Amino acid sequence: MTRDNSDYFNLLYTRERKKINSILKNAVKKRKPASLYGPGAYILNSNGKRLRPFLVLLSAKAAGGDFKSAYNAAAAVEMLHNFTLVHDDIMDNANKRRGRQTLHKKYDNNTAILVGDSLLSVAYEYLLKDCNGKSKSILNSFTKGLEEICEGQSLDTEFEKRKQVSLAEYMEMIRKKTASMLKMCCEIGATLGGGQPADVKAMANYGLNIGIAFQIQDDLLDITATEEKFGKQIGGDLIKGKKTYLFIKALDKSKGNDHKMLRKVIERKGIKRNQVKKFKKLYENLDLLNDAKGVINHYTKKALKSISTIRKESDREILVWLADSLIMRTK
Amino acid sequence: MTRDNSDYFNLLYTRERKKINSILKNAVKKRKPASLYGPGAYILNSNGKRLRPFLVLLSAKAAGGDFKSAYNAAAAVEMLHNFTLVHDDIMDNANKRRGRQTLHKKYDNNTAILVGDSLLSVAYEYLLKDCNGKSKSILNSFTKGLEEICEGQSLDTEFEKRKQVSLAEYMEMIRKKTASMLKMCCEIGATLGGGQPADVKAMANYGLNIGIAFQIQDDLLDITATEEKFGKQIGGDLIKGKKTYLFIKALDKSKGNDHKMLRKVIERKGIKRNQVKKFKKLYENLDLLNDAKGVINHYTKKALKSISTIRKESDREILVWLADSLIMRTK
Repeated sequence: MTRDNSDYFNLLYTRERKKINSILKNAVKKRKPASLYGPGAYILNSNGKRLRPFLVLLSAKAAGGDFKSAYNAAAAVEMLHNFTLVHDDIMDNANKRRGRQTLHKKYDNNTAILVGDSLLSVAYEYLLKDCNGKSKSILNSFTKGLEEICEGQSLDTEFEKRKQVSLAEYMEMIRKKTASMLKMCCEIGATLGGGQPADVKAMANYGLNIGIAFQIQDDLLDITATEEKFGKQIGGDLIKGKKTYLFIKALDKSKGNDHKMLRKVIERKGIKRNQVKKFKKLYENLDLLNDAKGVINHYTKKALKSISTIRKESDREILVWLADSLIMRTK
Repeated sequence: MTRDNSDYFNLLYTRERKKINSILKNAVKKRKPASLYGPGAYILNSNGKRLRPFLVLLSAKAAGGDFKSAYNAAAAVEMLHNFTLVHDDIMDNANKRRGRQTLHKKYDNNTAILVGDSLLSVAYEYLLKDCNGKSKSILNSFTKGLEEICEGQSLDTEFEKRKQVSLAEYMEMIRKKTASMLKMCCEIGATLGGGQPADVKAMANYGLNIGIAFQIQDDLLDITATEEKFGKQIGGDLIKGKKTYLFIKALDKSKGNDHKMLRKVIERKGIKRNQVKKFKKLYENLDLLNDAKGVINHYTKKALKSISTIRKESDREILVWLADSLIMRTK
């Protein structure tokens, strides 16, 4: 890929991100009651990457359609994503989201529960706008995605309480919690774009695999990012005692005192801030950062292989660029 | 209506209620993870009236179809209803629901938030099972119902904090919070039953109006029921300072000291348990209980008028029986 292409793709992404932001901004601002839609607008207007709606648009195009056929669905998946953020932030008792107060901190828990529910209803409303004749398959895909997100979130919570989590269980959890939504975005976009079953499947596999790569990259960034760029505490997963890819792999590979030290993280449900450096060192000694990069590359390659059947070269190129951007990201 | 008919309708209701319970029981019991679907089964297996699914079935029949066409949709609306109960109970910090511990008390708030979300996703899944060719209209109806429930719940919360609520505002709130779901059940049932637009509209109006009557009856029962039958504290709405039909009407009609006493309920956000009798007396003096009965009858009549176009006499009769049962109920 040439440097020019990359610049063009960046411009395109910026332009589409603005359009999506504008749809989201207008979606609820005039609705009443303000006690419900005011906080709804607060989260929809926050500064997200808009990766999921962009995937919907790119998939519609790759399947032979155009962006226009998929804007409402693109807004719908972002609303669904925001619904999960609002409810997850209550569950995690998180203070910050996208550089601002979380919704339940700015308002209160009850408002956040209800606003989340309401965002989901508006998401379905937007999804239904454009799917003439294809509503059953699109709605099934969206609903399946929603079910899996709930299942993934439940597994994630369950794993926090468990002493032992296998790598296979972890992979199943991130498939449901993160990757299934990206898969669904691609599936819906490709369907709206008029894709044949093979196109829809190709795009779905692309979404699923970049989703898995994306989540492991997230686990990796927790330890390798710089605090300024990452925007949150480095080693936060270790501090909370989360069983990430790195942690589970570390338990697998370590021996002796290192292994004992890791088992203590589980018993004590996390580590202290000043221990992060020591664990980073341990991860490096175990060559885990390279392991993680290898797995990320593996799933990215799988994603790229699955789109080899997409007809237009320019459509394939932007999907390659997006996959690369995600694994090269520093935040 | 003859006594025999009423017995037959009761039998029919009992039989269908069992069928619905069985669908609900099987809907999630084998799903994983158990940490999500176990609590989901707990609420779905609790002892509800199953009024909403029964409305779906009766509407399918009244529109010319049969019950069979609508069982999955019937289960879906009950799941939606249970989703609202689980989230509302967190917001109200309620201890009991249908004679058992509320879900968030038996488990915890985080579980209850997620289980509510998950029930909604399974509701959409069930709704999508049977609506071949009609999915857009059915999904729109369901989604609109969900939106209005959220809006109604938000208004209800807002009204608790406000000093002044007009009767018109109250009516708008209960239309959204309670009646819109019953309307939606009838609309979906009639659509699935293959009804013409006029049938769907007739049934929707029936649902909307019995919904309004149902909610005002609920307000009335709070003060007129006997504690054993009602299963909860008599005067609970007054104790919590809720602005019900009776309370708003009392504020309108009262003068002098009575009016001052009612205004104090707002300032103090409720009354003490031992004051309930005094307020019941006041309501009686203001002839409010008859006012309420009059309004309940008014909306019930509207409901019955709207179904005069339903062709089969037996279909109309059971709808009359159901409307009557709702306003004659003591719990």
